[in-house]
Amino acid sequence: MAGSPRRAAGRRLLLPLLCLLVQVATAILFAVFVRYDHETDPALWHWGNHSNADNEFYFRYPSFQDVHTMVFVGFGFLMAFLQRYGFSSVGFTFLLAALALQWSTLVQGFLHSFHDGHIHVGVESMINADFCAGAVLISFGAVLGKTGPAQLLLMALLEVALFGINEFVLLSLLGVRDAGGSMTIHTFGAYFGLVLSRVLYRPQLEKSKHRQGSIYHSDLFAMIGTIFLWIFWPSFNSAPTTLGDGQHRTALNTYYSLSASTLSTFALSALVGGDGRLDMVHIQNAALAGGVVVGTSSEMMLTPFGALAAGFLAGTVSTLGYKFFTPVLESKFKVQDTCGVHNLHGMPGVLGALLGVLVAGLATHEAYGDGLQSVFPLIAEGQRSARSQAIYQLFGLFVTLMFASVGGSLGGLLLRLPFLDAPPDSQCYEDQMYWEVPQEQEDEAQGPLRAEELDTQA
Amino acid sequence: MAGSPRRAAGRRLLLPLLCLLVQVATAILFAVFVRYDHETDPALWHWGNHSNADNEFYFRYPSFQDVHTMVFVGFGFLMAFLQRYGFSSVGFTFLLAALALQWSTLVQGFLHSFHDGHIHVGVESMINADFCAGAVLISFGAVLGKTGPAQLLLMALLEVALFGINEFVLLSLLGVRDAGGSMTIHTFGAYFGLVLSRVLYRPQLEKSKHRQGSIYHSDLFAMIGTIFLWIFWPSFNSAPTTLGDGQHRTALNTYYSLSASTLSTFALSALVGGDGRLDMVHIQNAALAGGVVVGTSSEMMLTPFGALAAGFLAGTVSTLGYKFFTPVLESKFKVQDTCGVHNLHGMPGVLGALLGVLVAGLATHEAYGDGLQSVFPLIAEGQRSARSQAIYQLFGLFVTLMFASVGGSLGGLLLRLPFLDAPPDSQCYEDQMYWEVPQEQEDEAQGPLRAEELDTQA
Amino acid sequence: MAGSPRRAAGRRLLLPLLCLLVQVATAILFAVFVRYDHETDPALWHWGNHSNADNEFYFRYPSFQDVHTMVFVGFGFLMAFLQRYGFSSVGFTFLLAALALQWSTLVQGFLHSFHDGHIHVGVESMINADFCAGAVLISFGAVLGKTGPAQLLLMALLEVALFGINEFVLLSLLGVRDAGGSMTIHTFGAYFGLVLSRVLYRPQLEKSKHRQGSIYHSDLFAMIGTIFLWIFWPSFNSAPTTLGDGQHRTALNTYYSLSASTLSTFALSALVGGDGRLDMVHIQNAALAGGVVVGTSSEMMLTPFGALAAGFLAGTVSTLGYKFFTPVLESKFKVQDTCGVHNLHGMPGVLGALLGVLVAGLATHEAYGDGLQSVFPLIAEGQRSARSQAIYQLFGLFVTLMFASVGGSLGGLLLRLPFLDAPPDSQCYEDQMYWEVPQEQEDEAQGPLRAEELDTQA
Repeated sequence: MAGSPRRAAGRRLLLPLLCLLVQVATAILFAVFVRYDHETDPALWHWGNHSNADNEFYFRYPSFQDVHTMVFVGFGFLMAFLQRYGFSSVGFTFLLAALALQWSTLVQGFLHSFHDGHIHVGVESMINADFCAGAVLISFGAVLGKTGPAQLLLMALLEVALFGINEFVLLSLLGVRDAGGSMTIHTFGAYFGLVLSRVLYRPQLEKSKHRQGSIYHSDLFAMIGTIFLWIFWPSFNSAPTTLGDGQHRTALNTYYSLSASTLSTFALSALVGGDGRLDMVHIQNAALAGGVVVGTSSEMMLTPFGALAAGFLAGTVSTLGYKFFTPVLESKFKVQDTCGVHNLHGMPGVLGALLGVLVAGLATHEAYGDGLQSVFPLIAEGQRSARSQAIYQLFGLFVTLMFASVGGSLGGLLLRLPFLDAPPDSQCYEDQMYWEVPQEQEDEAQGPLRAEELDTQA
Repeated sequence: MAGSPRRAAGRRLLLPLLCLLVQVATAILFAVFVRYDHETDPALWHWGNHSNADNEFYFRYPSFQDVHTMVFVGFGFLMAFLQRYGFSSVGFTFLLAALALQWSTLVQGFLHSFHDGHIHVGVESMINADFCAGAVLISFGAVLGKTGPAQLLLMALLEVALFGINEFVLLSLLGVRDAGGSMTIHTFGAYFGLVLSRVLYRPQLEKSKHRQGSIYHSDLFAMIGTIFLWIFWPSFNSAPTTLGDGQHRTALNTYYSLSASTLSTFALSALVGGDGRLDMVHIQNAALAGGVVVGTSSEMMLTPFGALAAGFLAGTVSTLGYKFFTPVLESKFKVQDTCGVHNLHGMPGVLGALLGVLVAGLATHEAYGDGLQSVFPLIAEGQRSARSQAIYQLFGLFVTLMFASVGGSLGGLLLRLPFLDAPPDSQCYEDQMYWEVPQEQEDEAQGPLRAEELDTQA
Repeated sequence: MAGSPRRAAGRRLLLPLLCLLVQVATAILFAVFVRYDHETDPALWHWGNHSNADNEFYFRYPSFQDVHTMVFVGFGFLMAFLQRYGFSSVGFTFLLAALALQWSTLVQGFLHSFHDGHIHVGVESMINADFCAGAVLISFGAVLGKTGPAQLLLMALLEVALFGINEFVLLSLLGVRDAGGSMTIHTFGAYFGLVLSRVLYRPQLEKSKHRQGSIYHSDLFAMIGTIFLWIFWPSFNSAPTTLGDGQHRTALNTYYSLSASTLSTFALSALVGGDGRLDMVHIQNAALAGGVVVGTSSEMMLTPFGALAAGFLAGTVSTLGYKFFTPVLESKFKVQDTCGVHNLHGMPGVLGALLGVLVAGLATHEAYGDGLQSVFPLIAEGQRSARSQAIYQLFGLFVTLMFASVGGSLGGLLLRLPFLDAPPDSQCYEDQMYWEVPQEQEDEAQGPLRAEELDTQA
């Protein structure tokens, strides 16, 4: 069928149809189910006779905006490190996140804030939806360059649903604490993407090897992503925590953890680098592992020292992962992980979950005082001991890994549907597959791609 | 006179003189008229025995900073898509906005907050001044690359004054609601710029055609602008609304609208693109139309579904505009619209005004409860029915279009003054006209421009 | 020893060892001394029975995030203007700031918030640590491209300590006011760096002259830094001021000052430029001088006019400095100032200190009302007259200059230690010294650097 007019027409219509279909379906579900909550509805808010200063907006919106920046600027530009895939990295991040936040509003709404037949929305639903978009973008990082936009849309649809269910099981059924999402976001997103990438394994991917690296300025664009992720990560972890000391402590712990992971990343990168030189891949990614590793525990009594130690460990593990484990992952396990999400989100996410087990297990009434109610309500109410909370935390990690693996497998099978038009092995990491690329650039490119080629190669 | 030393000296002095003159005049007017308001003056604030938490600063400053980012980062980099005009796009945005916010503080101050012989300033005047700068930058987008900095400064001086008057007529005299400025900012800025561009029509502009496109990395710089505009647009529309549920609901509606316009933009761009490929111009611009289209109505009871539907429509109309209407606008109407502001701000702005008419006309005491007073005070106080409010809203649109057209015509005539030193047709979209450009770049450029040429061509 | 295997091994281990050593030492000191303060500790916060809205987090965290953005994005990208030093500019900014904020938390903690044997941390310590990182990055700007990462780490360790002591002398012992740090941050950072650069003077630096300029896109990356510094400077100056009118007024004054310095910078740049053209170096830097010059006085009754006048002056002085003084500084004073920090931070910092002297000397009970207590507590309590406060302010400037000069000299001597592996004169401003640089870039570069060369040249 390759090269046939029917195929060309199919390609032309696939993405538009999918986008329009999803958008129309979402809009209908919004019309039926989604309503303003008592903080965004004028009648409800004014009926309550609240002071405006009490509106949740003023406590969480600045954090939300930082999270929003991380999702769209941070993830988008971080993935723009590839020399010929910047349009797709930033553009598909934009598309996937815009879809995920609508769809996730529905899924999370049905599971978390559905009452009287309606989903109620406000700044908390915005934060949660952006968090879910973050998980989708982590998975995107694993398959970056090897999947078309139609495939990615389907992946997002599936992943958002499973993310919501996994999150519901952990937070609502198991009473697990995971404010910054070491488990629900990072572990889930990473292993979902990695398993999916395994199912989509391409033995001939080296045909696109020459496009898999960066160029000088693409690395600088990627650093925009890195730095915005780094500076706003304290807001990410603290966005959904309890008000007052909760948000404050969470931001502080994350800030310390990140600063330590930055130092250990520079140290390890120079140590394992050729001739003592630093590697941009490590700096762009592993320096962020400090944010991931305290996702679960930064709201707890981690202590400033604990935050530094955790970040130090995460930066170390992540850098070593890029250097030594990523090649093995491809050669032995047949997992092609474009952005190394296993090193940035996978291992640090699991470490973060285990750190949460440890810190939860050490919780005492003494250390938390009356604040115990906010961080560990079940312990404060006497329904659980610290030790059993720790066991639940550990169980949450296993549930997450299971959901991610099964979901990623399903997702991989789904994305292998032939009409989804995956890029051929020789055209991976190439913007021209999906974008009008400015002409002079095409002339420069190694092996430019003519329109006829596109059809015959597919 | 071309090429004469006198001309060269004139060029050298024109911009400095204009800048200095404007700055000195503004400073004198500030000395005479501008004073701290009761929230920024220590004596007034402490005399009132307020709680610090009540200071407007804490309710609006985070939103202000997001707006500030949009104006300087968003607009500046969005316009940097041109291959050889990045310095001018970012630099003149910087200059024009820095001028506009001072000058607008005076104009808006005289019209809105002048009492006891003084203008009183604080965070609200900062937000309003940045909004006005936004309108100026929209107009800048229509004439980008075809006007020199001296022309742009004069344009800004005129436009800020007319913006203030139009805004005063709408908000204060007609009682029109337009928090996010679908009319006062987007419609006004777009049609002011388009009419001005019409008056400055250049039949020989194709002499600069080769510089009118983007290159690979200039498109990525432009995406920095797009994404920052997109993520902070909820703050833009909500920055001046009433506190509490007002700001909260406005931000939420804008967030939904933008996510829908992103999906419809991707869908339409692929549908109308050659071979189903996406066009960066659409993604960079039309995806933002969702923010424009709810500028008037996002503080109202638009409902989440309404926001999605509006955004969907705006993204669709805007993308189709770029594909089909922009060429006609130039060939038939002789309007050369560099950034396509007609598609991003013009049509979505008018649609947004009409949507405001509709949603205002549907306002009921039931839907808004006691919040009606904040959104539609004249209806709440019984001075107007919802229907008559709708008619006023519609009238506001016509007033805006009139002010913009007349103002744009005047502006165009003003900018044709010969001593303002417009770039020649062959040197449009070229940074070297105004900037020292690093040498190695000149070598690469198509048809580099030597200093002698500059004089003889003018 | 050059080129020997021992030297190569040394280079390879130097940076890792330093990073790890510092990180381990810091972590141990954190374990012993650093504790949550009463706003981040759950037991302490809940024991106090506070309203969550009272938590300092909600008053200062948005400002902190803006400061954080300035430090990591602003400084990092501003210094990326060099054509071949973008990785180092952004990367070493990242490393130095991550180190400085930990180390500064300790130094400032011992001096400012040490009680009961512990340092107490929260959002205020985060802001102060970021401020100190800012001073370190200013000094980095003076020696950019001429120092390796190991040298920079040692510089940061020394500078952070001296910064803390100088700040303690000024704010705590002398009762000097300097919220935005015209003295403690800008003057100190600039002259520390300049004196250090003098000690490290390289007579043969012209061997690297060809890499000292920018290229087209590196100038655009630098503008990202400039614009983020510019938009968030109001938050920088207001982050540590008293709540309520204090923060509000400080932000407003800074906003005006910056807008005026932008206009005067454009005016002067065109005036002194060849053929009336603008110079990116001026726009990127001098336009920011308005933020520096009101660092001390923006919390005082500077008045909006005063802010405009100060900014105007600062932009003028700074631009003229770049044009006329920087060459003299190198040729006559043997100070090689890569980023021109003398023009952006040095002179405007001193001007800002003097402006603080003036505005403090004019303070009256009438003008400040009960707010005098917040701005000038010693005057309000009758311990000082406005005039004597002014004299203390002036004395603070001298103390700062002395600390900076002595500290910079010491730092310079320290950095000349031979094992610190400074780059050779011919390899300054070159990322390949420290980074794996993507291959295709190396081919393009003028005089690429092979691994063997590195060893033999050192």
